[in-house]
This record gives sequence, structure tokens and C-alpha cells, in this order.
Amino acid sequence: MASSFCPKQALYFISPAHQLHQSRAIPRDIHVRFPASRCGLKSKATRLKVLATSAMDQSPSKSSSQAPTVVEVDLGNRSYPIYIGAGLLDQPELLQRHIHGKRVLVVTNTTVAPLYLDRTISALTDGNPNVTVESVILPDGEQFKNMDTLMKVFDKAIESRLDRRCTFVALGGGVIGDMCGYAAASYLRGVNFIQIPTTVMAQVDSSVGGKTGINHPLGKNMIGAFYQPQCVLVDTDTLNTLPDRELASGLAEVIKYGLIRDAAFFEWQEQNMPLLLARDPTVFTYAIKRSCENKADVVSQDEKESGLRATLNLGHTFGHAVETGFGYGQWLHGEAVAAGTVMAVDMSRRLGWIDDSLVERVHKILQQAKLPTSPPETMTVEMFKSIMAVDKKVADGKLRLILLKGPLGNCVFTGDYDQKALDETLHAFSKS
Amino acid sequence: MASSFCPKQALYFISPAHQLHQSRAIPRDIHVRFPASRCGLKSKATRLKVLATSAMDQSPSKSSSQAPTVVEVDLGNRSYPIYIGAGLLDQPELLQRHIHGKRVLVVTNTTVAPLYLDRTISALTDGNPNVTVESVILPDGEQFKNMDTLMKVFDKAIESRLDRRCTFVALGGGVIGDMCGYAAASYLRGVNFIQIPTTVMAQVDSSVGGKTGINHPLGKNMIGAFYQPQCVLVDTDTLNTLPDRELASGLAEVIKYGLIRDAAFFEWQEQNMPLLLARDPTVFTYAIKRSCENKADVVSQDEKESGLRATLNLGHTFGHAVETGFGYGQWLHGEAVAAGTVMAVDMSRRLGWIDDSLVERVHKILQQAKLPTSPPETMTVEMFKSIMAVDKKVADGKLRLILLKGPLGNCVFTGDYDQKALDETLHAFSKS
Repeated sequence: MASSFCPKQALYFISPAHQLHQSRAIPRDIHVRFPASRCGLKSKATRLKVLATSAMDQSPSKSSSQAPTVVEVDLGNRSYPIYIGAGLLDQPELLQRHIHGKRVLVVTNTTVAPLYLDRTISALTDGNPNVTVESVILPDGEQFKNMDTLMKVFDKAIESRLDRRCTFVALGGGVIGDMCGYAAASYLRGVNFIQIPTTVMAQVDSSVGGKTGINHPLGKNMIGAFYQPQCVLVDTDTLNTLPDRELASGLAEVIKYGLIRDAAFFEWQEQNMPLLLARDPTVFTYAIKRSCENKADVVSQDEKESGLRATLNLGHTFGHAVETGFGYGQWLHGEAVAAGTVMAVDMSRRLGWIDDSLVERVHKILQQAKLPTSPPETMTVEMFKSIMAVDKKVADGKLRLILLKGPLGNCVFTGDYDQKALDETLHAFSKS
Repeated sequence: MASSFCPKQALYFISPAHQLHQSRAIPRDIHVRFPASRCGLKSKATRLKVLATSAMDQSPSKSSSQAPTVVEVDLGNRSYPIYIGAGLLDQPELLQRHIHGKRVLVVTNTTVAPLYLDRTISALTDGNPNVTVESVILPDGEQFKNMDTLMKVFDKAIESRLDRRCTFVALGGGVIGDMCGYAAASYLRGVNFIQIPTTVMAQVDSSVGGKTGINHPLGKNMIGAFYQPQCVLVDTDTLNTLPDRELASGLAEVIKYGLIRDAAFFEWQEQNMPLLLARDPTVFTYAIKRSCENKADVVSQDEKESGLRATLNLGHTFGHAVETGFGYGQWLHGEAVAAGTVMAVDMSRRLGWIDDSLVERVHKILQQAKLPTSPPETMTVEMFKSIMAVDKKVADGKLRLILLKGPLGNCVFTGDYDQKALDETLHAFSKS
């Protein structure tokens, strides 16, 4: 379907429940209701800080440039804006208002530097000659998310004599964001930090939540910090250079937000998947905005992951087993999450918690997004069991899972399920 | 004088301005007034959170053990108690109330482990068989305060499969506290942390303020985090195994608190220095308590070191030049601070900011404490100038210093002084 897709026709598919914003096909001010007691967790309604979303004021001198969509992540005195839109790297005032001192260190990698480093430096310095920018270009890949590579960031910062008023800027995907963020949290015990995510995964996932860190040879993300940026700038133009598989991988997380807590968003995705795959900037801006809003809403209620935040891991427990068992780097994170989501949904159906129709819709949207709907054939039941047994979410010997329950947009995080359903799912999707 | 010192006579020297607490020679509830506008910094009186000090409630079953002195460090929801007293490692309930999970990792070094590791493990587990304790023993010394050594802590934690509810315990001096604290801040993005400082320096300095971290080959404490412990336990019995030089080094910081903000405490030290050198546990408990209270009061007003907190660095700028110029490890930190304090006091006198009598008192108390009152003879004016030029406190090309000004107990943090006075001080204390 996507191959014969026509962008103009596709506008027709936008959910009629949504108001169109002027000539845009994208609704800008939709607030989907999420019950505070959603997902089986008792959360305080008073702590529900839903996010202000607004077009930014434009300065007169910049009236020709497009105002970004803004998501405000509400974390008290550590709140920050996410700017989303096309061509934002050409609006220097967005970044410059968040630079406190005169020194900036851009952390990027060998893939992204040739594409966007010069534009980023221009955005930081245009009309602002007092700011000087250093950069450090790391090797690209999850296998470099370690202490040795992190030290290169510290080396550069110290050699450049950056002081406490400097700003670290992460330009790249999730690995760069995680490493640069942890470096910013640790350098001189904490300096300013800005994120410019250039992959869908980083834009819809890493840009909210403040999780930073590196891997240890014995485990992923074992060393790190919760550290919030001054701002996040998502220039949707950067998607034009993203490989297809990376794009699809990020969409797995977008789809997840709909499934766990935002039925209207899921329905919108069902209608707009062709435009997302075509990287339509306006459609993508909305997908990123709504994803960030959903994640920000969860994180503002549960910053340190004591319960509710775990629901963001739908499909991740099965998916993590795929990444570990099949070998990191074989499948992208979102690909493993997609297969894991299908397994979680299958198990939810076996428990009688959701309708068959929802199972079908999940299969269909993942296929549309060109994502896998089953784990690699080499995975065995025993591999799943042994890897999932050491998951962080095991408590008192019982594995807690995020499962769908009820109508579209509802989930639970629970260890209270019939073990038989889990066994049946594992056997249905992997070799004995 | 100290060599012919008689402890019993020395009680006589306790300042008559202080009330004696029952049969103790040590006043337990003295609150020295510090004007909120002290030190040339405008601080909000409403933020002055002076510390509650109390003898702890004793459980009936423990009525025979001595109640510790408690300093509450007031940092909102990150507040914590410092327990101070003799034999506290034999009161398991003090530590155990701050252990949240069932797994503990004690981080210590090759010097302290043979002395106190077994007692610490007993304190953590006696009457509490559910708690299991791992330990990692690091090499002793500032030269090991680096990333390689830090990784040994992570290795042990991960190999032991410690989860987010574990507790890291620092057993040792400042280096162990800094490294264990940073490891606790970073492991799984933050786990519980308890400090058991075993040197005077760590007890009166590192135990308050939350500064953790490691050195980089190009600079001290360049990588770290602000991270607060659950509690600090100071067992004054551990001082019995401390080398004399280490004891004196810690006293340099105790003397500093008196000079910068607590005249009554300085006067008390003048009277009680012989008892401090004799490691009298009751006298030492008071010195540690009052030092922690002074530091906690400063830190609660300025946790992230934006101004007021800099006053804790009296003597440290000159002292840091000594440590760097003379070679780390030659002089202990407190020894360098003592020489630096004399230089700062000398400069304050040259500026006409303090009386000659105060200069004499500073010399006298440092000599009593067996601390140096001048830098090593190999230091040159040029060495001081070049090292101080890159100090963190340089702003807009001007070196800001902490200097005494006015009556005993008053200081300023300023770059607004006659450069001639600095030059004269440097020439008076080092070769041209």
C-alpha cells in the first residue's frame, strides 16, 4: 500500500475527530484525555501536569521563518521546551537563548558531523560572535557507548578549558544523546546541556525523560544519571538523511504511545502511516509532538521510574531478549520492540484482556511501518526465558510485564497473570 | 606547649562563654550567630536553615549505649543526619535504618579494610540476617582516584547483580568518599549512599556538601556529581588509628570554619587544641559537630557553589598552588591549606582589613596543631602566579580570593583588592 501511496490523497485519511489547524493537515492543539488511574497504577491527579503546547512568539525580524511547535516538559525548576519543526537549525535564536556562557562543546559522530555539524555551529554563532564552539566527533555505533569513548568528551572539554558556564550540545541519535548527556551531568559536576536529536528514535524517546548513560561490558545503560537538558531542538529536515530502517525503528516507539495510553493518536497513525513513511515534515512534526507529550506526561508523574514510567516499556522485555539473544547490532532497537510488542499483544489476547480486532490492528500498523511482527527464527523459548529472568522488572521472583488490557489505549504493568499465557506466547513465536 | 600538655588541666581552658553540658566539658547546644549578610554576600535570611542538633532517642533495648550527637543537614527532601560519637560502629541500628534494600556494597581501601571492614559488616548485618554485604577494596591514595579505579566499583556491583534498591557504603577517607559517592550517583543512575568517614578531613569536610567525583589526568575533581548520602556515621574511635599528620591536616579545615564565620568556635579551638591533638573523643565530637554545622549552613544556602560556598575555600587557592607546584602527595591537603591560610591572612593584613593580633592568633593555632605556616621553600612567586591564573575562581581575568576582613569570624570573597598586596604576600612567602 505504501509503495503506491499518493501524499495528496492521504490527507483524506486524517481522523475526522481531529480539528484541522488552518491550512495544515495536522491538528496542533489536540489534548487527548488520559485517566490518571490508567494502567493499573494509582497516580495522583494533582500531579498530572499536562503540557502546554503552543506556537512560539516570533520576533519581528524573523517573521518570515516558521514558528516551531513547542512541547513544554514540566519538571518544576528543571522544565524545558522541545522545539519541533522543519528548518529549525536555520533559526539561531532558538538555540542561542539557551546558551548561558560563551563556550559550547558539540558532541557528534562520524556519520552526523559531515551532514549537520556546520549548520549547527552556524546556528550557535550566527549574530553572536562572542560564542566559541568546540566539537568532538565520536565513532558511530552502540558498541562505542562506553567509558573509553566518554573520556574523549572529557579530554576535549578539559583541553579546551571549558568552565562551569559552558554548554554541551548533543548532535545525533540516541547513543550521542545518552553519552553527551552523561558527560554534561558529570563534567565539573554538571554543565548546561542541549539536545539536537537527528533520528526518530532519539526525537520521540530520548528527548524526554532525562535518562543518560553508557554501557558496561556486563550490561546496557548500567552507568549514568538522570539529567535534564536546557532545551531540545528537533529539526525534521534531519529526517531526510535517515536510512529507512532507522526511520521505521523510531516509528515502533511512536506506535507504542498510541497503544499504551492514546487511542486517538493510534487511530491518527493508522490513517497517516503513508505520510510518515514519506517523511512529510508537517505530519512528522505532529507525530513527534504527540509522542513527546505522552512521554513527558508519564515522566512528569514518575521521573525516577518507580512504576508508571515502566509502561513506556511495552514490548521492550520481549524485545530486549531479542536484542541480547540475537546479538546487538543485528536488529535495531525499534525492530526488536516491534516484535516484542506483537508478543505482548498476543499474550494479552491469550489472557482474554483484549479483542482479536486489536491484535489485527497492531499487526497491520507494524507491517505498514515496515517493521517485523515476529522475532528472528533463531530465537528459542529457552533463550527468551533465561534472558527475561534477569530483567530489571523482576520482583520477588516474578517477571512484571507491560500488557494491554481493555479497549485500545489501555495497559497494565503487572506480574499478576497466568504463567500459561506467557508460555504459550513464547512457544508460538519461537522454537522449543 | 602541646608536648607538656595535661588533659585534665586543659578542661580549664574551655571558653567561659560556653555553657557546659552536664558533666561533659563540651557544650552541646551552642548556636553561634552568623549574620546572613556575612562575607560580603547577600544571602536571604529566609533561606538560613540552621541545623537542629539533638541527642537521639535511644531505644529501650540500647539504653546502655551512648546516644550519638546528630547534625541534621537541611536540604529539603535530600536532607540527612550526621551521627557523631565514640563507638557508633557498635550501634547497628544507626546504619540499618538507612538501608532500604537487602544488598549492600562497602567500598573501602587496603589501609582501612583490615582495621574497620569487619566491624562495618557486623554493624550492617547484626540482627538483620536478610542483608547481604559485598565489598570492594581499592588501592589507597589520591593517585588512584581515577576512572580505572572507579570501574572496579561498577564491576563489583554488576557482577554481584546489585539492583536499584542496593546501598553503597563509603568506608575511608576523602578519596573513598568521593569515589564511592560518584559510583553511587552513577550506578543504575543513582542508588542509596552512606558515608563512614575515617579521617578528620573526611569527617569535617567531605561529609557535608554532596561533592563527589574523580580526577582527570589534566585536573582534579573534573568529573563527578552533586549527590547526597542517606546518612553519615562518624565513629570517633576511628581516629585512634589515624597518623598524626592526617589528624593535623583535618584540623586545618576545622580552624578554617572558625576564621571565616564562627569566632566562638575559633576561641574554643584555641583553648582545646591540646585535647584535640590527644584525640579526646568528647572534644573531637564537638569539633566535628560544629564544623559540620558550619559547612551545612553554608551548603544549605548555596548547594551548587554560586558564591557563598566559595568562602569555604579560605587558604585553598594559595594551598592548591602549593599542592600543584610542589607535587601532589608531598604535602597533605590540610598542610597546604594551612600554609595558604597564613598567606591569605597575611594579605588581609597588608590590605588593612584585619588587626595584627589576628595574624598572630592564626600563626599560633596552626603551630599548636602542628601544621606548617609557610609554603615549601622551593615555591617561587612565578609558580604561584602561573598556577593561580588558571584557578576556577578567576572571573573576567581577575582572581577572586577569600580574605579575612573585620573582626575574627568575618571574611569576604572578592576580586576587588589592591594587586600590590597580593604581590607583596607572594614575595614574602616565596622566592622571586
